[in-house]
Amino acid sequence: MGIVHADIGVTLDGYASGPNQRLEKPFGDFPVEHLHTWMFEHAEENADEVAAITDAGAFVMGRNMFSPTRGEHDPEWRGWWGDNPPYHGPVFVVTHHAREPLPMEGGTTFHFVTDGVESAMAQAKAAAGGRNVSVTGGAETLNQCLALGLVDELRLHVVPFTAGDQGSRVFAGVPQIALEATSVRHTPHVTHLTYRRPGL
Amino acid sequence: MGIVHADIGVTLDGYASGPNQRLEKPFGDFPVEHLHTWMFEHAEENADEVAAITDAGAFVMGRNMFSPTRGEHDPEWRGWWGDNPPYHGPVFVVTHHAREPLPMEGGTTFHFVTDGVESAMAQAKAAAGGRNVSVTGGAETLNQCLALGLVDELRLHVVPFTAGDQGSRVFAGVPQIALEATSVRHTPHVTHLTYRRPGL
Repeated sequence: MGIVHADIGVTLDGYASGPNQRLEKPFGDFPVEHLHTWMFEHAEENADEVAAITDAGAFVMGRNMFSPTRGEHDPEWRGWWGDNPPYHGPVFVVTHHAREPLPMEGGTTFHFVTDGVESAMAQAKAAAGGRNVSVTGGAETLNQCLALGLVDELRLHVVPFTAGDQGSRVFAGVPQIALEATSVRHTPHVTHLTYRRPGL
Repeated sequence: MGIVHADIGVTLDGYASGPNQRLEKPFGDFPVEHLHTWMFEHAEENADEVAAITDAGAFVMGRNMFSPTRGEHDPEWRGWWGDNPPYHGPVFVVTHHAREPLPMEGGTTFHFVTDGVESAMAQAKAAAGGRNVSVTGGAETLNQCLALGLVDELRLHVVPFTAGDQGSRVFAGVPQIALEATSVRHTPHVTHLTYRRPGL
């Protein structure tokens, strides 16, 4: 049986994105080029961690990670990832607005879930076929999952700069939880911290 | 010439102490027994990091770290650390309220600085005799030092639990700053993350 893992890139002050997310700036007003440098420009030195993010049978994603718009969905919008997204499986997008499932190339299908993150998680677990479920972000969706105790393994990818205390902060509003640090690995552009629920 | 280093124990959500600090609860309403377990109950496995905190010629400390009271100083209060504090050098306490210097056993003297953290830092550097200056916390004083660019090396000692998003948060109000991760070390009860100013 798989576990639920969550990956998120965060600044040293805990932010996963900046304010004012929009089409031209998917991560908002934020030095985004630094936040994900480790994943793109330095993919080789972080190959294991990058691969682990999408090593899952199904995915849970927040609406704000799926699209720059809010409110009703733009039927033309097909995500940030081109025709063949890196998920290659069902992705359950938590949203207030219904939309028909959106099949993509390579096995990815975006399903739009309007009855909350717990429903999205239940659907993802049912669809994962015994593999892991991956919570892909953003911070708000991750925080909801953490608050509900839905995350078994949390992987923080910490970049060595601060966001200036603005944007979407991981752990905002999350109650007291205890974890166990299971691994830590440092590469020049990011520090990978992995935590698990005790007793897992 | 020494550098300015800062050490602080933080929760995974970035808190260094909880709300309602008082005599019976120096770290406020907070699972303090977990926050500093690594330093006391598990001192041996973290011996290098513990020793490095006080390996300095002078110290800068916030008032809230020196005493549980606010406002005018209680002349009977001599700090949390007994007759022979672990600093063994001059400690410059940033406070709004004047008090005569307080010499302790073992070489520690608490000096009370009422004209701000930059003045405290200047006095500490002058007193350090070429050794490092150590910023000992709490979070508010550290944040002021970070915002002013006074910290050369920041050592975060991250414990694997969250505070429930309450208390004094490291990086609160700190603007965007870039650092370099210089070392990371994990022991069962804490993860030690060390950052330096680029080009140092």
